Amino acid sequence: MTFKVDLNCDMGESFGVYKLGRDEEILDYASSANIACGFHAGDPATMRKTVRLALEKDVAIGAHPGFQDLPGFGRRNLQLSAQEIYDIVVYQIGALSAFVNAEGGILQHVKAHGALYNMAARDAVYAGAIAEAVYDVNPALILYGLAGSELVTAGNEIGLRTASEVFSDRTYQKDGSLTPRSDANALITDSSEAIARVVRMVKEGKVLTVGGTDTEMKADTVCIHGDGVNALSFAEQISKSLAEAGVKTVKVSDII
Amino acid sequence: MTFKVDLNCDMGESFGVYKLGRDEEILDYASSANIACGFHAGDPATMRKTVRLALEKDVAIGAHPGFQDLPGFGRRNLQLSAQEIYDIVVYQIGALSAFVNAEGGILQHVKAHGALYNMAARDAVYAGAIAEAVYDVNPALILYGLAGSELVTAGNEIGLRTASEVFSDRTYQKDGSLTPRSDANALITDSSEAIARVVRMVKEGKVLTVGGTDTEMKADTVCIHGDGVNALSFAEQISKSLAEAGVKTVKVSDII
Amino acid sequence: MTFKVDLNCDMGESFGVYKLGRDEEILDYASSANIACGFHAGDPATMRKTVRLALEKDVAIGAHPGFQDLPGFGRRNLQLSAQEIYDIVVYQIGALSAFVNAEGGILQHVKAHGALYNMAARDAVYAGAIAEAVYDVNPALILYGLAGSELVTAGNEIGLRTASEVFSDRTYQKDGSLTPRSDANALITDSSEAIARVVRMVKEGKVLTVGGTDTEMKADTVCIHGDGVNALSFAEQISKSLAEAGVKTVKVSDII
Amino acid sequence: MTFKVDLNCDMGESFGVYKLGRDEEILDYASSANIACGFHAGDPATMRKTVRLALEKDVAIGAHPGFQDLPGFGRRNLQLSAQEIYDIVVYQIGALSAFVNAEGGILQHVKAHGALYNMAARDAVYAGAIAEAVYDVNPALILYGLAGSELVTAGNEIGLRTASEVFSDRTYQKDGSLTPRSDANALITDSSEAIARVVRMVKEGKVLTVGGTDTEMKADTVCIHGDGVNALSFAEQISKSLAEAGVKTVKVSDII
Repeated sequence: MTFKVDLNCDMGESFGVYKLGRDEEILDYASSANIACGFHAGDPATMRKTVRLALEKDVAIGAHPGFQDLPGFGRRNLQLSAQEIYDIVVYQIGALSAFVNAEGGILQHVKAHGALYNMAARDAVYAGAIAEAVYDVNPALILYGLAGSELVTAGNEIGLRTASEVFSDRTYQKDGSLTPRSDANALITDSSEAIARVVRMVKEGKVLTVGGTDTEMKADTVCIHGDGVNALSFAEQISKSLAEAGVKTVKVSDII
Repeated sequence: MTFKVDLNCDMGESFGVYKLGRDEEILDYASSANIACGFHAGDPATMRKTVRLALEKDVAIGAHPGFQDLPGFGRRNLQLSAQEIYDIVVYQIGALSAFVNAEGGILQHVKAHGALYNMAARDAVYAGAIAEAVYDVNPALILYGLAGSELVTAGNEIGLRTASEVFSDRTYQKDGSLTPRSDANALITDSSEAIARVVRMVKEGKVLTVGGTDTEMKADTVCIHGDGVNALSFAEQISKSLAEAGVKTVKVSDII
Repeated sequence: MTFKVDLNCDMGESFGVYKLGRDEEILDYASSANIACGFHAGDPATMRKTVRLALEKDVAIGAHPGFQDLPGFGRRNLQLSAQEIYDIVVYQIGALSAFVNAEGGILQHVKAHGALYNMAARDAVYAGAIAEAVYDVNPALILYGLAGSELVTAGNEIGLRTASEVFSDRTYQKDGSLTPRSDANALITDSSEAIARVVRMVKEGKVLTVGGTDTEMKADTVCIHGDGVNALSFAEQISKSLAEAGVKTVKVSDII
Repeated sequence: MTFKVDLNCDMGESFGVYKLGRDEEILDYASSANIACGFHAGDPATMRKTVRLALEKDVAIGAHPGFQDLPGFGRRNLQLSAQEIYDIVVYQIGALSAFVNAEGGILQHVKAHGALYNMAARDAVYAGAIAEAVYDVNPALILYGLAGSELVTAGNEIGLRTASEVFSDRTYQKDGSLTPRSDANALITDSSEAIARVVRMVKEGKVLTVGGTDTEMKADTVCIHGDGVNALSFAEQISKSLAEAGVKTVKVSDII
């Protein structure tokens, strides 16, 4: 049996003179790139360049829509109506799609950013609005969402293919949800342990929770980070370790 | 012989709580709608609603990209590189396209807004960048430009279909350019005279210049305004007068 | 005994080409103007013009800071840290102050806008951050807040003068809080009844709650609206009715 | 005779998660800090932090207003009316002033940023609008401008104290203007030569032009850069070299 997983990374989050992330180098290890669409980060020039880079390195391209909150990088909770969420997601997918078309590529997926992603993981209204937006723009798009979340449920219900995402550097609770960052044991700082957990999630579909028992965990795609001091070395390490463990890193469209 | 012309109108220029224009009523007379894309005006909700309205009234839809200058409504000259212009045009066409797709319509054309339109009329670099952006996103799109301008030239050169636009309320100079607004005789305030001039441009391809001689003027499409106290009555009047003069108002894709 | 009350109105909420509210006319009836500072609405030109108008009509000037959310007009809840709230409030007060200084006026007060106001009414952290920002910029400023709210408490605790605000078109619950807008009986649509309630709040310090009993209600200032079809006629009516009932409309600095 | 000069540096140009410049370290060498005000760069949090840092290191604080063009970092020419320029300058000075007040400091000066600075150097209308805005907010403020430029002229005419600024890394033409960056000999890349030229401008009031002859050059303040690989080492070097050459680095208010 062959094991496969997608390594996705947020990209194209520079803005004007401001540079963020080591996109070009990370693209050597990622199999899919979530490209910011200008609302929480990114700008037209960065979008074009990042799309081009991803195509050069044969990395699948996704839209990475967020709240229209550049000052907060899309990380601050914002209460929107379902219609407002739908509209900002349609808009951002469209903006990125134009660059993908202009560069001769194909848009593979959509992954919401930051607070939008997190709120939609728990809130069926947010999740439904995102799923509907993605579906209406193009029903062939794959929707990424936190494994076991409302977002995955909403995507499946509307008829989209969905990719269940796991986080290598976060612990899980008994019910399969992420341990809140405010908890002492929320983060996994040892990279070897983080990778071993990912391998197990991919191969066995299970993860050890903070309560000491296992829970089921579907891992179609793993989020790796594009900035931070160790981002690049971790990307290289997880890429290599997965291969050694017999897990192929592939585009998510080759998995689901 | 049948004479045909397109009546186009800028639309969807509301923003959040701010309402602008009488889009719904003007759509009864226009054959094409240039819909703002969120940079100089418009927002995702307004874009969706305006696209829907245009489809309901069978009015052709165009993207109406402008400078990223909401405080100035895209009317202030901004010096950008060709690459920057290309990028903001691709982005905005894409954003609007997503709403058109989601609503089941087809994007017909692109008309630049305000200062971007005016600068591109005179400046080959701006014109070339816009034409290239439109072409790269979708070569089937029609590019609107001031009749006789660099924008029309650039569109034709790259292989796009172009629509030559005339203004009913503006006078022309000997060389076919618009009389600058700062000149006393720049505007035509009598609506009957304005319409008679349009009819002649469409039927004879000529217009009387401020110098007292005729100049050739290609009139595929006429700009009508969506706001202002008399916008609606003028739209009604020009629509009726064109019909009486044997000029059919049709989508520009039925002309060129 | 002389009864006094302040009539305050949100102002300067136009933006660029977008016009909102009938500021000039409303200023004939208001005794204090809360001027938007460019984050949820308003722009530098509008701020200057509105400050000038208020000074011409001898209306007290207040800063009206909101969330940095022009698309949502500052009406959408946004989760910020206390530090973030402090910073956006300091910034906006400063921006408006410069226009007040340039026009030779004095800034009287600060009233938070929309969602920022509402969140701070209930949330001691938000309220404390606003109060601290106001105090740090200028401890002589008066802080407006919903009567009985956290905002008034926080202002008093830090040593600011505070103005307790009541709403003429809203009903109150037993505990003195506003009935949520989602409730059927939240709004008072009859203007005579609305005004009679204000007169009683000013004179007796009481209001009839939806439960049928009275509750104490401190009414230093009453919010009147600047837009909406009946805004102007209501402003005129409440101004006249208060006078007839022996309640003087004065600047809040003459009350507290 | 004692020679004195001010070393000024643009600061506080980070935005949200985006970090720019080595403000804290540069402040050890600069005598005045031009702090971005949120239009071309900077945000409320960055403004507060940068003001605090400058006060801690006893560096004079100036407002650094720019065009409202975050995507272009205020470096792109924008055609505004005199009134529009006046308004954006008043607004930005006010916003920064509030943080300076809140932190217990005093605002010393105003230096326009990027394209606004450059356009105002040549254009009397832009220059006049800036000078008027500064004067109206506070006539005690010092206005920085390119030595010999319209900005200095406008400041002097309205009655402001002005500081003539020179650039250590730029060459000058016969008429005292900067050699355009597009020219091959526009930049001085050798830091020792750059510093020697500054010392001569301060001590002798002269600089060698690209034509080979001297021109008079008033040097109250020298611009040093806060970002770029060599910014910090250059700041240290020029600071040290000036001292060795008998030129004291002082706040500009101690010079003019």
